[in-house]
Amino acid sequence: MRIDPERLRFEVEARDGDARAGVLHTAHGPVRTPAFIPLATKGTVRGLESEEVAGLGYELVLGNTYHLFVSPGPDRIAAADGLHGFMSWDRALITDSGGFQVFSLAHGGVADEVKGSGRPGGDHGSVLSIGEEGVRFRSYKDGTPLFVSPEVSMEIQAKLGSDIALVFDECTPYHADREYTARSMERTHRWLGRCLDWHRLEGPARQAVFGIVQGGVYEDLRRESAQAVSEAEVDGLAIGGTLGRDKAEMREVLEMTAPLLPSEAPKHLLGIGEIDDLLGGIALGLDVFDCAVPTRLARHGTALTPDPDNRFRLDLRKPGREGDRNPIVDGCPCPACRNHDRDYISYLSRAEELTAVRLLCLHHLTYMHQFMTHARTAITTGTFSTYSASILAGVPPWAAGGGAGQSPA
Amino acid sequence: MRIDPERLRFEVEARDGDARAGVLHTAHGPVRTPAFIPLATKGTVRGLESEEVAGLGYELVLGNTYHLFVSPGPDRIAAADGLHGFMSWDRALITDSGGFQVFSLAHGGVADEVKGSGRPGGDHGSVLSIGEEGVRFRSYKDGTPLFVSPEVSMEIQAKLGSDIALVFDECTPYHADREYTARSMERTHRWLGRCLDWHRLEGPARQAVFGIVQGGVYEDLRRESAQAVSEAEVDGLAIGGTLGRDKAEMREVLEMTAPLLPSEAPKHLLGIGEIDDLLGGIALGLDVFDCAVPTRLARHGTALTPDPDNRFRLDLRKPGREGDRNPIVDGCPCPACRNHDRDYISYLSRAEELTAVRLLCLHHLTYMHQFMTHARTAITTGTFSTYSASILAGVPPWAAGGGAGQSPA
Repeated sequence: MRIDPERLRFEVEARDGDARAGVLHTAHGPVRTPAFIPLATKGTVRGLESEEVAGLGYELVLGNTYHLFVSPGPDRIAAADGLHGFMSWDRALITDSGGFQVFSLAHGGVADEVKGSGRPGGDHGSVLSIGEEGVRFRSYKDGTPLFVSPEVSMEIQAKLGSDIALVFDECTPYHADREYTARSMERTHRWLGRCLDWHRLEGPARQAVFGIVQGGVYEDLRRESAQAVSEAEVDGLAIGGTLGRDKAEMREVLEMTAPLLPSEAPKHLLGIGEIDDLLGGIALGLDVFDCAVPTRLARHGTALTPDPDNRFRLDLRKPGREGDRNPIVDGCPCPACRNHDRDYISYLSRAEELTAVRLLCLHHLTYMHQFMTHARTAITTGTFSTYSASILAGVPPWAAGGGAGQSPA
Repeated sequence: MRIDPERLRFEVEARDGDARAGVLHTAHGPVRTPAFIPLATKGTVRGLESEEVAGLGYELVLGNTYHLFVSPGPDRIAAADGLHGFMSWDRALITDSGGFQVFSLAHGGVADEVKGSGRPGGDHGSVLSIGEEGVRFRSYKDGTPLFVSPEVSMEIQAKLGSDIALVFDECTPYHADREYTARSMERTHRWLGRCLDWHRLEGPARQAVFGIVQGGVYEDLRRESAQAVSEAEVDGLAIGGTLGRDKAEMREVLEMTAPLLPSEAPKHLLGIGEIDDLLGGIALGLDVFDCAVPTRLARHGTALTPDPDNRFRLDLRKPGREGDRNPIVDGCPCPACRNHDRDYISYLSRAEELTAVRLLCLHHLTYMHQFMTHARTAITTGTFSTYSASILAGVPPWAAGGGAGQSPA
């Protein structure tokens, strides 16, 4: 770890067990943690413009290096004063490295993301070769051969001008065996070194770099990786790679991995965003979480609700919502819940009206922000375990005892 | 005409030549005219929720009887206290009769609308029979045979609970000859009688009914139709049917038809919404205008601009917008123009991001509202011809002399 306050300063304000409430001070302002990070995959949070995302209270969004590399390309974004200027977002930005996406082309799993591009039936791109140097693949947009390496990824992220860059890694899939996972991890560590070498010489002075801990579901590998990343000159750590087959295994992997990370580091759990998993991650001292689930659910007509028995989800496209005059979630301050009932939003979603996607995105981002701010308050008041239990018992975040001292239902 | 102030009261506040600034007092509040009416075809303005449409200043939107009949069905909407309750819109609503859509299935032309349903490749529906009684057709949704007659249309509109219902008519296409147009018009007049008979007995007490003047491009038929509709117990008149092959013929047809309508009637020009056509319609004393063009353009990445040489349009998907740091229209108060440049919106639109459609819808509705409110001010200050000339010379509405007394550029 290096702690360079010019790039990033992480201040822990309160602890409750291992959970902590902190502030990540970036070149574009503070990010209160724990925080959910909305995806601005292609330079916009789905259906929302930047001003609205800030209005919802978010202080950090995540841009996707792979997608922005394919289109519109880093030079066009650099010419707009980076991704901040391009998308008119003046708060903090993190960019992933593109590793997850290019390896998903090889390992499978990127389909969902590419489906989200509004290009059904389009070419999903394909990997041409993976080697020590980097990865060659074809653009899903027009088939152009492209190449990403640790250096290229850092160069793109430098042009995007994010406040936090992630190092280029291989995201090992669940079906990889121990040997593959170990070899992949070792290469990821070599790539970490190359990323940091490039960044030391060429990176933006105020851009922080997070390293990524790999090692799959293997405790010794996670330990080895945590140590290697912690010893490198990173400003924070992320947990990447497979976390296992199911939620139980995920919990195990996180429980063994989280304590291996240096306490003073800001910690990012990559790609996880379901309510119960977030509670688990926060309890383990993880600070920021990004996930495509909220926006993906919105596209498919599913709403986040305080319903643990149904994975905190309500499928509005299921028949039987006709005449349901309840809001998605009673008491939710989002426009979907303030102004509309399930009957209407269900109809709009089945009719594939844009308004449905937008209302559900607004609901999800409002709901996640409520969830995180109340979790933060619970940590500062030493009541996080009560808050967590209430959420898992089906209490909505604003009534779960984190905030105004309400007792859980 | 009947003028029943319980249903509708139209107050002309100022005249400038034939142009007039008025207020349509409906059961759901006032509508200042001249007014552009955004389409809430399927119960939502594309990508915007009702609260936002009101926030943009709109006082009247148009729901589509045909689409809402096919899905979700009038009973479901009636159970939500009508379309007002269903879509949480508490201002004025007008519903078309469904005539345009069912006849478009026979005559062609509905394709664009159905394309807008987000169901590319779906069944566009088809007409099974057209007779004196009404029209039988298949649902584009699931192939169910459906039937619409004057009585059915009025019954649906009664269930939708709109403030203004339109009578069921045949929208004659341009390619219809004189004989077909005459016979169709006569049937439309018989249907007008049936609509009013049904409405007198069964219609909501506070729902107004507008008759539709047909007659195609034939002066004697337009005269005959205007007289027949004016003599019926309608609360207002709409001009329907083909207006000709091109803008020149449209102007001719409108110039001969508009003076045939009773001066005291509120007048609706159906389906027309290009800037120059609106100026022409306002100058002829027409009051309200609905049109799919603004939202359709938004879907296709085209923005309204004060550029008469390009039909007041800017195609943002055309190559060459990269690096263009200008807003769509300098000085436009919409979020797209306040916060973003052409470079970014062009990228978003080419990437088929929802945010692009939404930003362009917001731009178009803001722009049209500006255009209409400044036109209204120009009428009240007796400067409408100057305003009109400025707009046609490429001055944006807010600088065209209608409002704060700016002189046109």
